[in-house]
Amino acid sequence: MISWKNMDQTAAFAKLAALKDRVDLTKAMAGENGARRVTRYSVPMSNGLVYNYAAKQVDDEILGVLCELAAETQLAEKYKALYNGEVINTGEKRLVLHQLTRGQLGEDVMADGVNKREFYLGEQRKVADFARRVHAGEITNEAGETFTTVVQIGIGGSDLGPRAMYIALENWAKQNHTFHMEARFISNVDPDDAASVLAGINVARSLFVLVSKSGTTLETLTNESFVKDALRNEGLDPSRHMVAVTSETSPLAGSSDYLAAFFMDDYIGGRYSSTSCVGGAVLSLAFGPEVFERFLNGAAAEDELAKNPDPMQNAAMLDALIGVFERNVKNYPVTAVLPYSQALSRFPAHLQQLDMESNGKSVNRFGEPVSYVTGPIIFGEPGTNGQHSFYQLLHQGKTIVPLQFVGFRASQIGRDVVIQGSTSQQKLGANVAAQIMAFACGKDDENPNKSFEGGRPSSIIVGDQLTPESLGALLAHFENKVMFQGFVWNINSFDQEGVQLGKILAKRVLAHDTDGALKAFSDMLNI
Amino acid sequence: MISWKNMDQTAAFAKLAALKDRVDLTKAMAGENGARRVTRYSVPMSNGLVYNYAAKQVDDEILGVLCELAAETQLAEKYKALYNGEVINTGEKRLVLHQLTRGQLGEDVMADGVNKREFYLGEQRKVADFARRVHAGEITNEAGETFTTVVQIGIGGSDLGPRAMYIALENWAKQNHTFHMEARFISNVDPDDAASVLAGINVARSLFVLVSKSGTTLETLTNESFVKDALRNEGLDPSRHMVAVTSETSPLAGSSDYLAAFFMDDYIGGRYSSTSCVGGAVLSLAFGPEVFERFLNGAAAEDELAKNPDPMQNAAMLDALIGVFERNVKNYPVTAVLPYSQALSRFPAHLQQLDMESNGKSVNRFGEPVSYVTGPIIFGEPGTNGQHSFYQLLHQGKTIVPLQFVGFRASQIGRDVVIQGSTSQQKLGANVAAQIMAFACGKDDENPNKSFEGGRPSSIIVGDQLTPESLGALLAHFENKVMFQGFVWNINSFDQEGVQLGKILAKRVLAHDTDGALKAFSDMLNI
Repeated sequence: MISWKNMDQTAAFAKLAALKDRVDLTKAMAGENGARRVTRYSVPMSNGLVYNYAAKQVDDEILGVLCELAAETQLAEKYKALYNGEVINTGEKRLVLHQLTRGQLGEDVMADGVNKREFYLGEQRKVADFARRVHAGEITNEAGETFTTVVQIGIGGSDLGPRAMYIALENWAKQNHTFHMEARFISNVDPDDAASVLAGINVARSLFVLVSKSGTTLETLTNESFVKDALRNEGLDPSRHMVAVTSETSPLAGSSDYLAAFFMDDYIGGRYSSTSCVGGAVLSLAFGPEVFERFLNGAAAEDELAKNPDPMQNAAMLDALIGVFERNVKNYPVTAVLPYSQALSRFPAHLQQLDMESNGKSVNRFGEPVSYVTGPIIFGEPGTNGQHSFYQLLHQGKTIVPLQFVGFRASQIGRDVVIQGSTSQQKLGANVAAQIMAFACGKDDENPNKSFEGGRPSSIIVGDQLTPESLGALLAHFENKVMFQGFVWNINSFDQEGVQLGKILAKRVLAHDTDGALKAFSDMLNI
Repeated sequence: MISWKNMDQTAAFAKLAALKDRVDLTKAMAGENGARRVTRYSVPMSNGLVYNYAAKQVDDEILGVLCELAAETQLAEKYKALYNGEVINTGEKRLVLHQLTRGQLGEDVMADGVNKREFYLGEQRKVADFARRVHAGEITNEAGETFTTVVQIGIGGSDLGPRAMYIALENWAKQNHTFHMEARFISNVDPDDAASVLAGINVARSLFVLVSKSGTTLETLTNESFVKDALRNEGLDPSRHMVAVTSETSPLAGSSDYLAAFFMDDYIGGRYSSTSCVGGAVLSLAFGPEVFERFLNGAAAEDELAKNPDPMQNAAMLDALIGVFERNVKNYPVTAVLPYSQALSRFPAHLQQLDMESNGKSVNRFGEPVSYVTGPIIFGEPGTNGQHSFYQLLHQGKTIVPLQFVGFRASQIGRDVVIQGSTSQQKLGANVAAQIMAFACGKDDENPNKSFEGGRPSSIIVGDQLTPESLGALLAHFENKVMFQGFVWNINSFDQEGVQLGKILAKRVLAHDTDGALKAFSDMLNI
C-alpha cells in the first residue's frame, strides 16, 4: 500500500540532520582512502555508463540513512505505480507514461480504450515509415525534389529536449553515415528567431514539424503562420511542407494543412517528450528511425535499472537521494551540470527545464504547502569551456554548488591532434578528473588569494562514447532522478501551474485590458 | 583619499538589515501606486535605454541608505581611480583599462611607456585597416580568392563575449547591409568542437583569429594545431590563413606564422575584452570596422554615465547597489538574466562569466577573508523560451531568484506576422511586461497549486532596438555594475586565481604524475 507523506514526516529524514557535517571531503578524498572511495562509490548504469559519487559528502552511514529514506518514501513502489498506470499527476489527474514510449516496464496500461504501449509504438512506426519515405524520395516537394532540412517549430519541451538530442548526435550520425537531413529549430515568439532560421535554409527543400500537444501554444502557432507566409511567398503550398506532432484531440489532429500527423497524449509531459514522437519526428528525419530506436533502447535499459529498490544499485535513485541530502540537509540551493563533451552543449538547458519545471514547487501533491525546500536551480555549460568562465566562483566563491560532471573516454568524430604528448580527448578527460579533485580537496596556499578551501562535492557519469544508446540512458537517468526526488519531496513533478499566470496577464496586455503598473510597463514597451 | 574597507565596516550597511522586509511587492506594485513606481523608479541610460527598477524590493528609504552606501564605499572615486590608471587589480598588480578601449574617461594613462588610449586606438585602427583590406579583396588566400568566413579560436573571455556580440548583431548587420563574413567559434579542447566547425566551413576561404593574451592557453594552442593540420591537409599554408590577437610580450607576437598580429595587454581582463581587439578582430571582419566602432561608442557613452556619483542617476551603480541589497540583506544566492530577444541568446552566458569570475571571491582585495557573501550565481536564457522551461521554479519554487529582464520595442529584422490581432514583437513585449507583474504581485487562488505568492523582484532594461550602440551600452552597463559591486564588497574583481588549481592538476594527470583518487579518476577516463 503506497502512502504519500511529506519528507519531514519520515524517521530517516530526521536522522539526516545530525549527519550534516560528517564528511570532510578534503580528508575523505585524500590519499589511499580517496582511491578506495572512487572504487567503492560507483554504480554501474546501462550502456557502459557508470555513476561515481566518491566526491560527494556522503559515507556509509549517510548512505545507510538515505537507503532508509528510499524505503520509507517507497520510491520503488511509487515508480512501479507510475509505470503501471496510476494517476501520479494528481494536479491534472493524469497518468505519467513517458517511460512507456521506450519500453514495457510492467503491466499493460490501458487508457482511452487502448493499450498505451501499443499506441506509442504505433506512432513511432508511423514516424519511422514517414521518415523512410522522405529519405527514399517518395515524399518530396511539389517539384519532386527531396527534402534536405527539417525544421522543428515548438517551444519548451517541444524544443529544448529534441534540440539538445539533435546536437548531441549530429556529429555521431555524420561520422556513422546515418545523417540524412540537417535540423533547425524555431521556438521564440521573437519574430527574429523564425526570420533568421528561414533566411538560413532553402525553404523549398524544407520540411517543418509543428509540435504542440494542445494545438493552442501561442508561440508555436504564431511561428507556424510565419513559416506558412514564407512558404507562400515562394509560391509553395504549406500543406506539402508541414507535419504535425500533437494530441489526437487537438485542433491540428485532423487538419488537411499537414502532410501527416503524429500523436502524443496528455500522459507525456512536454519536458518528458523527447522519446515520444515530439523528439521522434525530427530525430528520425535527421538521423534515420534506426538511430532513434537505438536512442529509445538506451533509455529503456536505464528505466529497467531504475526499478531496483536498492539505491546502492540504482544510480538514478541514489543520485536523487544524494541530491536531497545536498538540498535539504546541506542547504545548497543550486546544482551545476557540467558535461565534458561539446556535443552535450545544450543538455544542461534541457535538464534545467526538466528539473526546475518538475520540482520547482512549494506545495505537495495534495496542494498543501511544504515546509522544506524542493528542486534546486540548475545551470551548466560544457567543459572545458566553463573552466574559463564561472568555475572561479565554484572554486573560491561563498556559495557551495554541487556539481554533476559527465565525461567520455572517446570523442564522437575521432579526429584528434597530439600536443605536448597528449590528445585533445585526453586533455579533456584529464581536466574533468583534475576538477573533481580540485573541488573536493582544495589546496592551501600562504597567499589566501591562491588558496582553495575544497569541500565542493561532485559526481561524475563516465561512459565510453556518446552514442544514441548512452545518450538515451543519460536522458532517462536524469528523468528518473527528478521523478524520485519528486517522490521524496511528496510533490507532483508532472504539472506546471506556475507558467499560467504570465500567459493570462500577457493576453490582457495584448487586449489592452490593463491598468496600473501593468499598463505602465505595456506602454513602455509600446504594446 | 580613497579608503578600501570591507562592506560590513560601513554605517550604511548596518542600517540595511532593519529594512530587509520593508517592501512587500504584492502591495507596492498594485494599483496606482504601482504605476507611480514604474514612472519614478526609472533611470535613463545612454542610446535610448532605460533601467527600470519599479519591481525591486526597494523604496525611497532603502534607496536613500543605498546612496549612503555608495558614498561611504566611494564608488565614484574608485571608478575614477580605475580609469585614471591606478593599480586596481591588486592581486596581479595591474591597471584595469578596458574602458579605455572605447573612450578617454579621464586623464591620460601612461603605462609601459605609452599612452594607453593611443595604444588601444592604434590597435583598433590596425584591425580596421586589416578588415577593410580583407573585404576589398586585397588580402586573399593563395589562390587569390576572398575570405568568406572568420573563425575565432579562443576560450573563456576570448570566446564568450565576442561570440555573444556576434550573435547579437548578426541579423542586424544582415538587415543593414553591413554583413561581410560569417563567423564561427572554436573554444573547447574537446576535439569534436574543432572538427565539427571545420567540417561546416570552406577551410580554403576561411581566416582564423587565434586569441590568447598569454600565448600559452592550452585549449587555444591545441585548437590552433588542429586547424593548422586541417589547412595543411588541404594543401594550404596556415600562415596565409591566420592572424593572432595577443599581448606584445607573448610568444605569438612576433611570429611569422600569422598574417598579422593585433595586441591587447595585461590591463584588459579576458572577460572585459570584447571591446578590445579580442572582440574587434572578429566583429570588424564580420560586420565591418564601422559597426565595431558604433558598438564601442555605445559602450563609451554608458561608461560616461557611470561616472555620476549619484546612484539615482547612474543605472550601473544603482543596479549594483540593489544587487548588493538582494545578495547581502535579502540573502538571494542567484540572479537570472532574461533578455526578451533571441539575438541575446548567448548574452547570459557572457554575463555568467563576467559576473561569476569577477565577483565569485571569498577574500577581500588585501587577501583577508570576508564575512559576507559576494557575487551571485548567474544564469539565463532568452524569453519567451525560458517561460516554457525554468520559470515554473521562479514563480512557484521555494527559492526566490531576482530577475534581470531586457526588452526592445522593435525587432532587428522587422519581418513579422499578425496573429490574433498582434505582431510577434508585440507578443514578446506583452510577455515580458506580464511576467514582471506576475512575479511581483502573484495571484491568490483557492487551489493552492494554482496560487502565486508573488514577491519575486525584477528589473528591466528597455530600449528601442538592439543595435551596435545599444548592445555596447548594455555590455558596459553590466561590466560597470560588476565593477561597482566588487568595490562595495571590497574584493578584487579583476583576477581569477580560482581557475589555477584545476590547470595544475590536469597537467599532473597528463604527465601521469598522480596517485590516490586522482589516479583512480584518471584511470576511469583512460588517460
